[in-house]
Amino acid sequence: MTRNARTTRSAPKRDFPVGDVRRYLEPGPIVLVSSRWKDETNIMTMGWHAVMEFMPSLVGCVIAGGNHSFDLIRNSRECVINLPTTALTDIVVRIGNTSGAEIDKFRECGLTAEEAREVGAPLIRECHANFECRLHDDALVERYNFFIFEVVKAHVAASPKHPETLHYTGDGVFMVSGRIISRRSQFRPGML
Amino acid sequence: MTRNARTTRSAPKRDFPVGDVRRYLEPGPIVLVSSRWKDETNIMTMGWHAVMEFMPSLVGCVIAGGNHSFDLIRNSRECVINLPTTALTDIVVRIGNTSGAEIDKFRECGLTAEEAREVGAPLIRECHANFECRLHDDALVERYNFFIFEVVKAHVAASPKHPETLHYTGDGVFMVSGRIISRRSQFRPGML
Repeated sequence: MTRNARTTRSAPKRDFPVGDVRRYLEPGPIVLVSSRWKDETNIMTMGWHAVMEFMPSLVGCVIAGGNHSFDLIRNSRECVINLPTTALTDIVVRIGNTSGAEIDKFRECGLTAEEAREVGAPLIRECHANFECRLHDDALVERYNFFIFEVVKAHVAASPKHPETLHYTGDGVFMVSGRIISRRSQFRPGML
Repeated sequence: MTRNARTTRSAPKRDFPVGDVRRYLEPGPIVLVSSRWKDETNIMTMGWHAVMEFMPSLVGCVIAGGNHSFDLIRNSRECVINLPTTALTDIVVRIGNTSGAEIDKFRECGLTAEEAREVGAPLIRECHANFECRLHDDALVERYNFFIFEVVKAHVAASPKHPETLHYTGDGVFMVSGRIISRRSQFRPGML
């Protein structure tokens, strides 16, 4: 795991257009949400999220009230959505099965907190991509724990072009992203 | 395509617990949304959706106002979310690149409309799974075209256990679902 994490860590990241984050989030990967409020940071796993708009770049996310991260995000109105790959599989599972009320997840999981550019929440360096988010609309937070975030800054590793992502199916089972197929020639330009 | 469609068509479906639909929807597959209003039916592709709750079984979906399906769903307050596999790749692309205002998608794509059990919208027989949905909350429809549906009845093919699904990444490119890995032994029971 350490070796894999280091490999991921060394991949240089480039700025990425926020209007294109669907490229990474629409296929439904499990993501790591990092947050900070006052002196506390935390990380949680998330699989209940959907792209909602290109510009502004909106992502709707269910963050259950039972998560230690809920209050950090509710109070700071910010978070970072980080995209892990299979190099971090066991760390993803560990993060999803521990509570930030009990452990410091960055330290216990050997992850590196990097300063973000636009928000106070930290980036997770070992992830393939980091999307800095500000709360855009909390109209459905009370009823469904549903936060609509705007991605205000995106960082993506230059390679690989198609990272091997984890897609949760419940019951401890993940689907790993598979082969890539293009049907570009069959699309109308406005439909891409 | 016809042969594959027939293969899919012949797979018997069983009732499936509505509280477990995350099994199929959480990994982010592109889905086909079928709808009916008065004498008109239609099908659209959808990739902007998220599981929101187990029970009631809620799924949040962005259905842009430009879609011919929008009014059918807005008026009927129902739809069916159908899960296609790679056997239907070219049909999925065709459905996403044509408008129900111009063609009858069931007929033109050779798909079979089956009566649903709980809603008026038709099931697509050739899909691996069909989730009958009723509109649960339209609070964010005006602002974001965001519909929250309750899955009221689910039908899933008995095999394969892990269908080969399509996950859209924009630009005419799909990721196909890959290998399955389990980390069940590392999960706390309440976290599965």
